[in-house]
Amino acid sequence: MMQLPFIEPIADAVLAGRLQQRIDRLTKPVGSLGRIEALALQIGLVQRSEHPRLDAPQMLVFAADHGLAAQGVSAYPSDVTWQMVENFLAGGAAISVLAEQHSLALHVVDAGVRHTFEARPGLMVRKIGEGTADSSLGAAMTAEQCERAIGAGREIVRALPGNVVLLGEMGIGNTSAAALLLARLAGHDIAQCAGRGTGLDDAGLRHKVDVLRRVLALHESATGPLDALAAFGGFEIAMMVGAALQAAAGRRLIVVDGFIGGAAVLVAAALAPTLLGYCVFAHRSNEAGHTLLLDHLHATPLLELGLRLGEGSGAALAWPLIDSAWRLLDRMASFDSAGVSQRSDG
Amino acid sequence: MMQLPFIEPIADAVLAGRLQQRIDRLTKPVGSLGRIEALALQIGLVQRSEHPRLDAPQMLVFAADHGLAAQGVSAYPSDVTWQMVENFLAGGAAISVLAEQHSLALHVVDAGVRHTFEARPGLMVRKIGEGTADSSLGAAMTAEQCERAIGAGREIVRALPGNVVLLGEMGIGNTSAAALLLARLAGHDIAQCAGRGTGLDDAGLRHKVDVLRRVLALHESATGPLDALAAFGGFEIAMMVGAALQAAAGRRLIVVDGFIGGAAVLVAAALAPTLLGYCVFAHRSNEAGHTLLLDHLHATPLLELGLRLGEGSGAALAWPLIDSAWRLLDRMASFDSAGVSQRSDG
Repeated sequence: MMQLPFIEPIADAVLAGRLQQRIDRLTKPVGSLGRIEALALQIGLVQRSEHPRLDAPQMLVFAADHGLAAQGVSAYPSDVTWQMVENFLAGGAAISVLAEQHSLALHVVDAGVRHTFEARPGLMVRKIGEGTADSSLGAAMTAEQCERAIGAGREIVRALPGNVVLLGEMGIGNTSAAALLLARLAGHDIAQCAGRGTGLDDAGLRHKVDVLRRVLALHESATGPLDALAAFGGFEIAMMVGAALQAAAGRRLIVVDGFIGGAAVLVAAALAPTLLGYCVFAHRSNEAGHTLLLDHLHATPLLELGLRLGEGSGAALAWPLIDSAWRLLDRMASFDSAGVSQRSDG
Repeated sequence: MMQLPFIEPIADAVLAGRLQQRIDRLTKPVGSLGRIEALALQIGLVQRSEHPRLDAPQMLVFAADHGLAAQGVSAYPSDVTWQMVENFLAGGAAISVLAEQHSLALHVVDAGVRHTFEARPGLMVRKIGEGTADSSLGAAMTAEQCERAIGAGREIVRALPGNVVLLGEMGIGNTSAAALLLARLAGHDIAQCAGRGTGLDDAGLRHKVDVLRRVLALHESATGPLDALAAFGGFEIAMMVGAALQAAAGRRLIVVDGFIGGAAVLVAAALAPTLLGYCVFAHRSNEAGHTLLLDHLHATPLLELGLRLGEGSGAALAWPLIDSAWRLLDRMASFDSAGVSQRSDG
C-alpha cells in the first residue's frame, strides 16, 4: 500500500481571527472585496502566516494519451496530444501565451504520451507508458503504474521552487477518464458526467456515453479512489494526484484548472480530505460534469467564462486574482495608518 | 446645447467574420476560450483591426463630494472622500495596489472634492465645485456645471496616451446619485435601485430610500439624461460621462467598474447609444441596483466576486482577462502553422 504524505488541515481559528482582523482594518468597507478577501484568508491559512506571500508560481501541464480514445470518444485524433505538447513548448498554445503574460514558470510533463520527444528546456519526460491501455478492454493502468505516476507527480513538485502550483493537462480522451472517475467516486449517472469534450456532436456524445457505461460495468469492483484511477486512467491524472498531494503536504497553494484537474483533486481528496483546504478552483468549465464535480467538492470557482480548453488555461487566467489577494493584504494601508475616518456608527 | 462627439458603431459584419475566422483557426477547440474569444472579437471591432493590440491602459479615478451626504445616506462621513484621495496617491488603497500590480497608469482626478489638495504627480485638479449641492433641496449642479464637468472628462481622456481607459471613482454618497439616475433613466422603483453602499444597516437603508424618494419627487421634471445628471449629481459621474464619450469617439476600449461607473455609462449611452459597443463591464457588484443597471444595458459582466468597493478596483481586477484576449489572438499558433491535426470530422 502506497504511503500518503501527511496533509495538515488548514483550519486554525486563532490565526483566522487575526487574519480577518487585519483584512477588516484595511482602508475599504468591511467585506467590500468579496471573494478576494476570502482568498487572502485562505492563503494566510495555507501558509500559517498573518503575512502570507505567494512566490514563484509554477504551472505544470501533464500530458498523456488514453487507450480508450481508440473507441472514438473524442472529436480529435490522439496525435493531437503530442502535437499540442510541441505547440506548448514552441510558445504557440493558449497556455504558452498566458504563462508568459503572467510570468508563470511553465513545465510540460510527458506523463505517458505515445510519442518520443526531443529533450529540451521546459519539458520533463516522466513517461509511465506509451499511453494507457484501453479501459473498455481492461484496466487503463496497473496498480504499479498508478503508484509510479503518483510518485512521479510528487517528486516533480518536491523539486520545484515557490509556494504555488497551477495544475493543467493535455490528453485526447481525458474528459472520458474524468467523467468515469466522477461517476464512480461521486455516484452520479455517467450520462450526467460525460460532456462534449473538445466538441463532439449529439451522435458523438451518445456514443461516448454508451462506451463509458460499458467501461463502468467492466470495472464494477473498482470503487476505491486508487482502484478507480487505475481502472480508468490516465497517467496525467494520476500524476496530478501526486502533484496535488505533495503540494498540500508542503503547504503550497494549488490552483486547479477545470474538469480534468478537478477529477484529479477528487481522487486526491478521497485519499486525503484535508487537501481541499489548499485548493483554489479557477473556473467553472462548460464541460457538462464540471458543475457536479465542483458541487461534490463543495467548491465555488473564481471565474465563470464558459471556458473548456484545458491546458491549465483557466488556472492561468484566474492567477492574477489570486495574486491580488495577498498583495492587497500585504500592501494596503489600514484606517489608522492612512488617517482615514471610520464609519459614522463605528 | 452641448455638442456631442460622433461615436461610430463598432458593428462591421465583414471584419467580424474575418476576426472570427482568425479566432477559430487558433490551436484550440472552436469556442473553447468562451468569453475571452468574445472579448477578442470586441477589441478587434473597437480598433477596426484584424490585429488589435491594447496599449498603455489608463486608470482614471474621479473623486467628488455630494451635498446629499448631509442627509445621512452613507455609513461614512464625507471627509472620507478626500482622505481616500490622499490614500490613493500615497499608494495605500486597493486601487493603488492593483494598478501597480498590473502596470496601469493611475490618475486621480479631483472633480469636486470639498478639500484643497497639494499638487503632486498622479493628481489632476479639475474641481467643478466644493462638492455638489444637496439634491434634496435643489439641483445638485447647474446645467453649466454639468456641461463643464463633461467637458473636463473629455479633455482628460483626449490628452492621455494608449487605447484603453478604465473608469473608477470615489465619493461618499455616490451610490445615492447612481441609484437616482438608475431609477429615473431606467424607470425602476428607487427601493430596488438603492443599496447599502459602503455598509448601511437596515434602518440606514430605509432612511436612504426615504430620502431618495423625496429627491426624485423634487426633480420630477428631470427626465432627460443631462437634466437627471444635473439634478442628482455628482461631479465625478458627470466627468466619467465625458471620459466615456471621448474614449468611444477615439475608439478606445472602456473598462467600466461597478455601480457608479455603470450609472455614468447609463447617462452616456442615453446620449449616444453606440458608446455601449466600446464598453467592457468588469464585474457584477453586490450593490443592489447593479444587476438592474446591467440588465437595462444588456451587459454581461466578466467577474462575479461579490465586490462593492469602487475606486475602479473591479476594473483593475478584470484587466488581465481583457489583456489576455488580444494577446491570445495575436500570439497563438494556428492549426496550420503549428502542424496540429484538425478534428476527425473537420
